[in-house]
Amino acid sequence: MKTIPPFTSVPYQQVTIQGGFWGNWQEINRTVTIPAIYQQLKQTGQIDALSLNWKPGMPNPPHIFWDSDVAKWVEAASYSLALHPDPALEAQIDSIVETIARGQTPEGYFNSHYLTVEPQNRWTNLRDNHELYCAGHLIEAAVAHFRATGKRKFLEVMMRYADYIGTVFGRGEGQKRGYPGHEEIELALVKLYHATGEKRYLDLSLYFVDERGSQPHYYDLEAIARGEDPASYWAKTYEYCQAHKPVREQHTAVGHAVRAMYLYSAMADLAAETGDTALLQACCKLFDSVTLRRMYLTGGIGPSAGNEGFTFDYDLPNETAYAETCASIGLILFARRMLRFGCDRRYADAIERALYNGVLSALSQDGTRFFYVNPLAVHRNGEFTNSFRGQGFYDARRKEWYACACCPPNIARLLASLGEYVYSEGSQEVAVHLYMSSRARLHVAGTDVILQQETDYPWDGRVKLTVTPARAVLFCLRLRIPGWCRRAKVQINGEDTPLEIESGYAHLERTWKAGDEVLLTLEMPVDRVYPHPRIRENQEAVAICRGPLIYCLEGVDNGEHLYQIRLPRQADFEIAYEKDLLGGIVTVQADAVRLDESDWEDTLYRFQPSQTQPHRLKAVPYYAWGNRAEGDMLVWLREG
Amino acid sequence: MKTIPPFTSVPYQQVTIQGGFWGNWQEINRTVTIPAIYQQLKQTGQIDALSLNWKPGMPNPPHIFWDSDVAKWVEAASYSLALHPDPALEAQIDSIVETIARGQTPEGYFNSHYLTVEPQNRWTNLRDNHELYCAGHLIEAAVAHFRATGKRKFLEVMMRYADYIGTVFGRGEGQKRGYPGHEEIELALVKLYHATGEKRYLDLSLYFVDERGSQPHYYDLEAIARGEDPASYWAKTYEYCQAHKPVREQHTAVGHAVRAMYLYSAMADLAAETGDTALLQACCKLFDSVTLRRMYLTGGIGPSAGNEGFTFDYDLPNETAYAETCASIGLILFARRMLRFGCDRRYADAIERALYNGVLSALSQDGTRFFYVNPLAVHRNGEFTNSFRGQGFYDARRKEWYACACCPPNIARLLASLGEYVYSEGSQEVAVHLYMSSRARLHVAGTDVILQQETDYPWDGRVKLTVTPARAVLFCLRLRIPGWCRRAKVQINGEDTPLEIESGYAHLERTWKAGDEVLLTLEMPVDRVYPHPRIRENQEAVAICRGPLIYCLEGVDNGEHLYQIRLPRQADFEIAYEKDLLGGIVTVQADAVRLDESDWEDTLYRFQPSQTQPHRLKAVPYYAWGNRAEGDMLVWLREG
Repeated sequence: MKTIPPFTSVPYQQVTIQGGFWGNWQEINRTVTIPAIYQQLKQTGQIDALSLNWKPGMPNPPHIFWDSDVAKWVEAASYSLALHPDPALEAQIDSIVETIARGQTPEGYFNSHYLTVEPQNRWTNLRDNHELYCAGHLIEAAVAHFRATGKRKFLEVMMRYADYIGTVFGRGEGQKRGYPGHEEIELALVKLYHATGEKRYLDLSLYFVDERGSQPHYYDLEAIARGEDPASYWAKTYEYCQAHKPVREQHTAVGHAVRAMYLYSAMADLAAETGDTALLQACCKLFDSVTLRRMYLTGGIGPSAGNEGFTFDYDLPNETAYAETCASIGLILFARRMLRFGCDRRYADAIERALYNGVLSALSQDGTRFFYVNPLAVHRNGEFTNSFRGQGFYDARRKEWYACACCPPNIARLLASLGEYVYSEGSQEVAVHLYMSSRARLHVAGTDVILQQETDYPWDGRVKLTVTPARAVLFCLRLRIPGWCRRAKVQINGEDTPLEIESGYAHLERTWKAGDEVLLTLEMPVDRVYPHPRIRENQEAVAICRGPLIYCLEGVDNGEHLYQIRLPRQADFEIAYEKDLLGGIVTVQADAVRLDESDWEDTLYRFQPSQTQPHRLKAVPYYAWGNRAEGDMLVWLREG
Repeated sequence: MKTIPPFTSVPYQQVTIQGGFWGNWQEINRTVTIPAIYQQLKQTGQIDALSLNWKPGMPNPPHIFWDSDVAKWVEAASYSLALHPDPALEAQIDSIVETIARGQTPEGYFNSHYLTVEPQNRWTNLRDNHELYCAGHLIEAAVAHFRATGKRKFLEVMMRYADYIGTVFGRGEGQKRGYPGHEEIELALVKLYHATGEKRYLDLSLYFVDERGSQPHYYDLEAIARGEDPASYWAKTYEYCQAHKPVREQHTAVGHAVRAMYLYSAMADLAAETGDTALLQACCKLFDSVTLRRMYLTGGIGPSAGNEGFTFDYDLPNETAYAETCASIGLILFARRMLRFGCDRRYADAIERALYNGVLSALSQDGTRFFYVNPLAVHRNGEFTNSFRGQGFYDARRKEWYACACCPPNIARLLASLGEYVYSEGSQEVAVHLYMSSRARLHVAGTDVILQQETDYPWDGRVKLTVTPARAVLFCLRLRIPGWCRRAKVQINGEDTPLEIESGYAHLERTWKAGDEVLLTLEMPVDRVYPHPRIRENQEAVAICRGPLIYCLEGVDNGEHLYQIRLPRQADFEIAYEKDLLGGIVTVQADAVRLDESDWEDTLYRFQPSQTQPHRLKAVPYYAWGNRAEGDMLVWLREG
């Protein structure tokens, strides 16, 4: 069977996000975050490093992953430029492009680390270093730049680089049978193929994906060639980089979570392009592995700091959750690609879960600071978590930058291109995956259609869609009924319409004419959510959710020692929209209890349980935590 | 005020443990553990290393702490020898003593690492290495050997070593103002003082304790002398080795837990010897810090693997609990010394808690294998705990040996000298701290007294004491009423006696005559114990305890996923003595519930809590866990 993907995402250039929740965040991203990241990249020397002026003995040598951070910024800035012309920004991008073009070697190579710090070692350690990863991000940036501006220079520079890579790697004589330790270039090459129509880039991507995990193992041979014992590999297993077996045999999400998501995204791309059902089946199993057994309630993935990645099923500890921002972004990338195979709510649910919670949490309210890890509980500013780990990852405060700064530009490029995640179109149908005020230019059933969304989502579950086809036309409008929603209602032009739901999407098939109005109402009560009984940390606990938002308690609202708060099973919730709090949020309050410490004197253990006292609980959306006074945070709350 | 310690421990040579719980363990220690450790010390080359034959280029260089492991074995073997003559064992010890004597340098130095691996570096890194620590253990061994056998050779060798150390360190001209990074020699020198009567050893101990933490900081100067930046100290803070401030200003237990306990033990020794109330006050505050805010229910201390030690108050996570065996042994050493200042139940309670739980858990039922860390919950053989930490400390199986093998001989020496922890005597009084079948030869009120204990403790709370003075004599017999006991009863010669309890000890003052019988009955129901409301991991959980024993659930009895079991608040307990199980134990059963996984299909989170099904819970003493099939273990159990 050849898979024929029925859907493609509507490109972000055709989707204007208009105010509302995400309009606000996209504006912060454009006006604050993207400029702030540029300043950091300048200050840290990452942009200047592209000039290849570093010489041995100088301070601040270009790091193996520096190019990728700049590339992601160029990608983010390009997306932004496409929606908001900005000559100054364009000049910044062009200058970077010029610098890279100047530094590219005659054969097409570019890497600011390898061309300066260790020129003798090019392509000698694919397993640990980030050479092909950086190339991948540069390619993504070039494609974004081309699509945003129409300028071909960067694209052509990167085509030359990709062509050179295609000569180095492959199954031909004299070629290296290698593939990247940190996946990324695979999905980038699919983008390059789409941008150029050159099938050789698709083939190179396929080669990298297919070669992965084959025997004799390239990383063994490569280590031996470096004079190392392959058994001394620090990560102990090639699961770390998903190279432990061929990709079609991989059914469990393992290893470094960002690497995993980027690989699975490429696998989904390639399955869609080639109709390879074995590849698609692996993708489906891997998606299940992640979302049914290895995902935090927030859409965070990869619980362990040791490998920045996965451990075993249902192992989702709260305080020590790594849940790297980039990993949740990677989950969004993967899930969006899975939507090409048809509407299935589970993919858009995963996108929404990660986007509103574990990704957005990484960005400060003002857009200037970032979380790298996104734990579900923080006590004493992560003091224990860090003392155990011995590193400073865990923190109750977002930071302006990180020595390994993958996350900040990753958020920026996601927010700038967010429109791409909202709609899909097929030949006779349109799907709405996410709800946000926006205007989309579609083409369906041979007809141009404008689809206008107006909503206060995620604060309110009512969404008004106005359909404006160029002429009356028959097509199916599919509206996602989110997994969190237990009661949904649709009215068309003011009349109730019976809901026919398939794979989580209401399908409204009719001849649409200009001005048709669809009112979708998603009931959005405050809900209690319970964890699978194998999640061993959170039994007897409950999470407060409303719509797509996971809530949390903060010390600033509830006093510290949040684990002492218990929510009675029958307590009612009260919500309020507080427009002056954290950019305007709906807060949740309830009558709860709190352990009473006052009668514990001079004893650590005793025969009587603690007494309790009343506590008025106040919860805020998880994404908004850590923007006020430094303090504790808790998602899973004791119940009973 | 000069402190005059009213009590001294009755030496282990005067206390014969006769069968019963501890008699059995002491026998296993003598016949299995001590020989097994000797074999390991031979096989690993630790004994042979004492010959100083290692040369650069040879494999297996003597490690900086190897001497201490051998020394602790000699100490254990000497204790055992004193109670059970054994010519073969004595020959093994003598051979080691001869080897050390031969290797001692003319000035008196001995260290198998420094004399072979880095002879140029003697006394250059007190902060990180273990030179004075090894010396301390050798001194303790020499004192034990002398007391057990009357042979003076080892004692004299170590007096020469101590004298040499006294020339190197001190406040005189040309002397180093140093002190050990790993405390131990301080308490050893007090023992050497007691064995020899030479006050210079007491003075040297005092010097080491007093100098600690003074400014300019010796470890700073020493690092600079090595050409290192003191700020690059791996542990970041001198709290790690309790050298962050002078000891009298230390009121919170910090850093590496074993180091802390050894230091505090020496401080208590010195306070008793010198009457230094400031030192005693620091000891009291440190004991409170440990036992009221930083101690596991099992008597384990030091929750963090990162520093093998303390973090902050009430930070007592279960799965990642380090709770090193040696640290709990150290707590016992510290608490016994605090008993010199008078009977206070809290000290003997701490000894009992650690001894029956967090220390005994480290030894396998057959005496051949050991735990280094003693977590309060184990899931999947510590897979996550290790993946997070990146090391193989956490394990559901005891190991025969460790690369850092401090714990095995430490258990052995504790068990061999256990008699020393049972009784104290003052001029007009005798105290019984621990209950075990034993016969003690005492001297009180100028009279020899035989005190015989018969009991099935810890399985039964009845203890029969028979007092046999050489002549009728007036003295006070103090019997500890353990903190876990809520109802105690005393009969003397069959007649109920009103209990007068002071600081947790019943005092029975009368003219004792031969054959007087005291029957102490400690009610020993199964109890539920609750944690202080600041212990954030275990709120809503309960521990099952009976007498001095903490209980746990094991997978082999309850199925895996023990966190899914919940004990109803009102459930009754049923106990049974199972003589064929784990050497004969009292087990506890109750009707509980278990989460039902069967209606969780294809979802990780949902709106309804899990259903439950009945579960017959079975608990065994914590010390006995891990001796059957490999599996999960849990102390703190959900309640409600």
